[in-house]
Amino acid sequence: MRKIFVIGIGAGDPDHLTLQAVKALNQADVFFVLDKGEEKSDLVQLRHDIIEQHVTRPHRLVSAQDPDRDRTAPSPVYASAVGDWRHRRADIYEHFITSELADDECGAFLVWGDPALYDSTLGILEDVLGRGTVAFDYEVVPGISSVAALAAKHRTGLNRPARPVQITTGRQLAAGFPEGADDVVVMLDAHQAFAHLPDGGADVTIYWGAYLGTPDEILVSGRLPDVSDRIQTLRAEARARKGWIMDTYLLRRTPAGDRDDG
Amino acid sequence: MRKIFVIGIGAGDPDHLTLQAVKALNQADVFFVLDKGEEKSDLVQLRHDIIEQHVTRPHRLVSAQDPDRDRTAPSPVYASAVGDWRHRRADIYEHFITSELADDECGAFLVWGDPALYDSTLGILEDVLGRGTVAFDYEVVPGISSVAALAAKHRTGLNRPARPVQITTGRQLAAGFPEGADDVVVMLDAHQAFAHLPDGGADVTIYWGAYLGTPDEILVSGRLPDVSDRIQTLRAEARARKGWIMDTYLLRRTPAGDRDDG
Repeated sequence: MRKIFVIGIGAGDPDHLTLQAVKALNQADVFFVLDKGEEKSDLVQLRHDIIEQHVTRPHRLVSAQDPDRDRTAPSPVYASAVGDWRHRRADIYEHFITSELADDECGAFLVWGDPALYDSTLGILEDVLGRGTVAFDYEVVPGISSVAALAAKHRTGLNRPARPVQITTGRQLAAGFPEGADDVVVMLDAHQAFAHLPDGGADVTIYWGAYLGTPDEILVSGRLPDVSDRIQTLRAEARARKGWIMDTYLLRRTPAGDRDDG
Repeated sequence: MRKIFVIGIGAGDPDHLTLQAVKALNQADVFFVLDKGEEKSDLVQLRHDIIEQHVTRPHRLVSAQDPDRDRTAPSPVYASAVGDWRHRRADIYEHFITSELADDECGAFLVWGDPALYDSTLGILEDVLGRGTVAFDYEVVPGISSVAALAAKHRTGLNRPARPVQITTGRQLAAGFPEGADDVVVMLDAHQAFAHLPDGGADVTIYWGAYLGTPDEILVSGRLPDVSDRIQTLRAEARARKGWIMDTYLLRRTPAGDRDDG
C-alpha cells in the first residue's frame, strides 16, 4: 500500500519543525513539491533547505507547476474559481501518487504552518481517494501554525481567560467583526480588512505579523487607530520589495459589556 | 537581566517538541515545575522525561505545589476563584524568579500544548512584572496545541474552505452553539457540553480525542447522535482508570443555508 505523509513544517522558521516531522521526513522516498512560480521562490528554497538539512536517507524530489488561481474574482465567481483550481490540483496529486510512487513507497507533502488551518492538501487527497483510481493510506503530522507563531512573537494568548477565539479570513472580516468572539485571528487577508472596521476599530488592539519566523519578519502591535496606517505602509513596502507577502493578525476587542457604548 | 523561556512542549507526544523548543531547553539553567498532585503525576513525569532526554547541559529543577483551584464553582464564583488562584500562582512564580534564579541566569516554564491557548503562564508572568518587584525578560516558544494534534489524528481540517473556526470552552458551549461559526473546537469541558446541544446535535459531526499523543490516546468521530453515548462512556471509564482526563473535540455543523430547516 502506498503511504503519504502530510507534514506541517511550521510558519517559516526552520526550527519550527517538530521531532515528529523530522522522523516523518526520514520515512519518505519521494517529496512532492508544487512550484508557485518565481515570486515565492524563496519559500520553495526554504522547503528544499529543510529536506536537505534533515533527510539523511536517499530520496527523490518531484515537482509540478501549481495551477493558477484567480484570487481577485468576486465572491461567487471566487468559489467556482477555487473549485476549478482544486480539481486541477487533484489531477496533479493523482499523477504524483500513481506515476511517481511505487506500490510500497512512501511520499510526503510539506505544508507551511499546520495542515489543519486553511490548507487544501487534506481535502484534495480525499478528493483523489474518492476518484477510486489509486489506493493509499495517509498520515498527518501537525505543525506550528502562523497563528501560534504570531501569538508567540507578540507574547500574548490567543484567547482571554474562559473566552473564545475565532480564526477567520479577510473576506469574512470584511463582512463585519464576528458575533460572539472578541478575539479574532485573521488569515488570508489580501485587502487589509482591519482598516475598514466600523469606528476605525476604536476599541480594538491589533497584533500583526508578516513573514513570521523568517529573517524578513515584521511585527507591529497597538491600538488599531494608532497603528493601522503604519501596518498598511509597511505591508505595501514589503510586498513591493519581495514580490509577495504572507501576513496574519489578531484583533482583540473590548468585550461589549466593558465598552463605553455597551 | 534574568531571562525566562515559556516553552510549548506539545500535546502529550514527546515528538511534538520543536527544534526551537529543544534549543530553548538547552539555554535554561533552571526549570520551574508545578506539581499538580498525585493524580496527574504521569504528566509531571513526562515533563521530567523531556528534560532528561533533551537537555545536555547542567541544570536545576525547582518545583512547588500548584495552588488548588475550585473548578466546580458556579460561574460568578468561578471567576473570583480563578482570580484568587491566579494571584497565588503569581506569588509562586515571583518566588521562583526572585529566589531561584540568579541575575544572569535563564529559567524555563514548560507548558503543555501551545502557551497561547487556554494557558495562564503568560498572563501570570505579566502580573509578576506588573508588581515591579523583579525585572526579567521573557520569550515564548510556540508548541503543538491539543487542537492541532486532534485535527492531525482525525486527518481533518479545523475550518472548511474560506470559513471560520471558533475555539471555545465547555462553559461557553453549554450556553449554545456559537453564532457565526459552524466549526467549533471545545477545550476545558468537564461536563460534556456536546451531549446537551439542542436536537441532540442532529446536524453535527464530532471529532473527539483524549490523552492526545500519549499511549492512552482515544479517538472517536461520527455523527454526534450516533457516538455521543459512546464518548461519554469511554470518557468516564478512562477518567476512573487514570484518575484524570484531558480531552478536546471539534464540532462540525451543517451550515444554516444547507440545513433542512434553513
